[in-house]
Amino acid sequence: MEKLKLIGDERLDYLLAENLRIIQSPSVFSFSIDAVLLAKFSYLPIRKGKIIDLCSGNGIIPLLLSTRTEAQIVGVEIQERLADMAKRSVAYNQLEDQIEIMEYDLNKITDLIPKERADIVTCNPPYFATPATSLKNENEHYRIARHEIMCTLEDTIRVAASLLKQGGKANFVHRPERLLDIIDLMRKYRLEPKRIQLVHPRIDREANTVLVEGIKDGKPGVKYVPPVIVYDELGEYTPVIKEILYGESE
Amino acid sequence: MEKLKLIGDERLDYLLAENLRIIQSPSVFSFSIDAVLLAKFSYLPIRKGKIIDLCSGNGIIPLLLSTRTEAQIVGVEIQERLADMAKRSVAYNQLEDQIEIMEYDLNKITDLIPKERADIVTCNPPYFATPATSLKNENEHYRIARHEIMCTLEDTIRVAASLLKQGGKANFVHRPERLLDIIDLMRKYRLEPKRIQLVHPRIDREANTVLVEGIKDGKPGVKYVPPVIVYDELGEYTPVIKEILYGESE
Repeated sequence: MEKLKLIGDERLDYLLAENLRIIQSPSVFSFSIDAVLLAKFSYLPIRKGKIIDLCSGNGIIPLLLSTRTEAQIVGVEIQERLADMAKRSVAYNQLEDQIEIMEYDLNKITDLIPKERADIVTCNPPYFATPATSLKNENEHYRIARHEIMCTLEDTIRVAASLLKQGGKANFVHRPERLLDIIDLMRKYRLEPKRIQLVHPRIDREANTVLVEGIKDGKPGVKYVPPVIVYDELGEYTPVIKEILYGESE
Repeated sequence: MEKLKLIGDERLDYLLAENLRIIQSPSVFSFSIDAVLLAKFSYLPIRKGKIIDLCSGNGIIPLLLSTRTEAQIVGVEIQERLADMAKRSVAYNQLEDQIEIMEYDLNKITDLIPKERADIVTCNPPYFATPATSLKNENEHYRIARHEIMCTLEDTIRVAASLLKQGGKANFVHRPERLLDIIDLMRKYRLEPKRIQLVHPRIDREANTVLVEGIKDGKPGVKYVPPVIVYDELGEYTPVIKEILYGESE
């Protein structure tokens, strides 16, 4: 294992279910359960193919996907600090042969990555519209990761569609309030919604997250797969979530 | 209680949770759990207002709604046989002052009911496209109730929208495969989707029913309310469903 350089307040966290480790920092942006759910939600080719993760952050999704596929994975992240953390995590886990992290603007990524070649695109984009000036004091890294500053929802969907081959699958995670917009935008860019999964914090609460898969030039017909319930009535993680996070079986 | 006339193979069934009775016939079309879920899903004015149920069948939805509101309720049903059953059930339950059943084509219903006056419209429409000729032997009553023969999905949404006042609410139940079409059509006719509820037969199965509320000229922003799970892992009705069907509390 090569010597690991941690910068500032960075930590080396375990991805418990996957026997991997990932560099995180509270002052930058830690991955959320949404990214973990998106990785779990996405169908993958097992042996070969090309997978691209947009808005890759500290590389959580490429790291998680690497445990389920031998396909090549590219993570695209515009923020230098986050891309650097992702690269060091990839190196620490000795996954450089499989995962490439590109520090680049996704709006220009087809300069570097050929169009219409990818089998799978994943994206956990910023959820919020550009903030009002009152929020401008927020940490810059958080602002960019959480708000549509460097890319809009439409950018991520357009770019995902342009990278995918016919029949390729795009996977997004977002807030349910945006689902109708996401569906409209997906269809605008030839991504037909095929699977939708709602995530409810508890069985008796409104959904606060949604996962969507679209197939490029797919036939219409969407399925609503079983919901994810995060906490049980005692406030404990449900067995499904425990298994995702800790690898415990039900 | 007036003397009840039952015709042919009709039965007088209990609506257990509501202390009501309803005339049903296996050779015509019995109400489904979908209608009961739609009644439960719909917000109602308590004291006054106007509620219209389209594709009313044997009147199950007006009967159920009458227990929760003093508003006037109109049920519109094109099939003579079903409308007649509905009228006799209304009379049997002594609800003639509150519920009116109109045997009429919903596409022409604004001849009889003024536009832009209703507070609530409910509709459990036919789910299937017009059947191929191979199904033509199916019982005529079932065919019309289940297939888009007398009205299409677009008809029901257009008519619901035309009957509603600004801020009025339309409530539909349908198959999840049609949800994206329903949303597109609702927006086409100024009904903004506001609440969506998925119904899963079990927690680990795909949704097979969806409930949608739209508000006429409402602001965008949809909530995905807690899912309905119909059966538990032992194949028994869940407490939520038992309460809806039998009035048992959890």
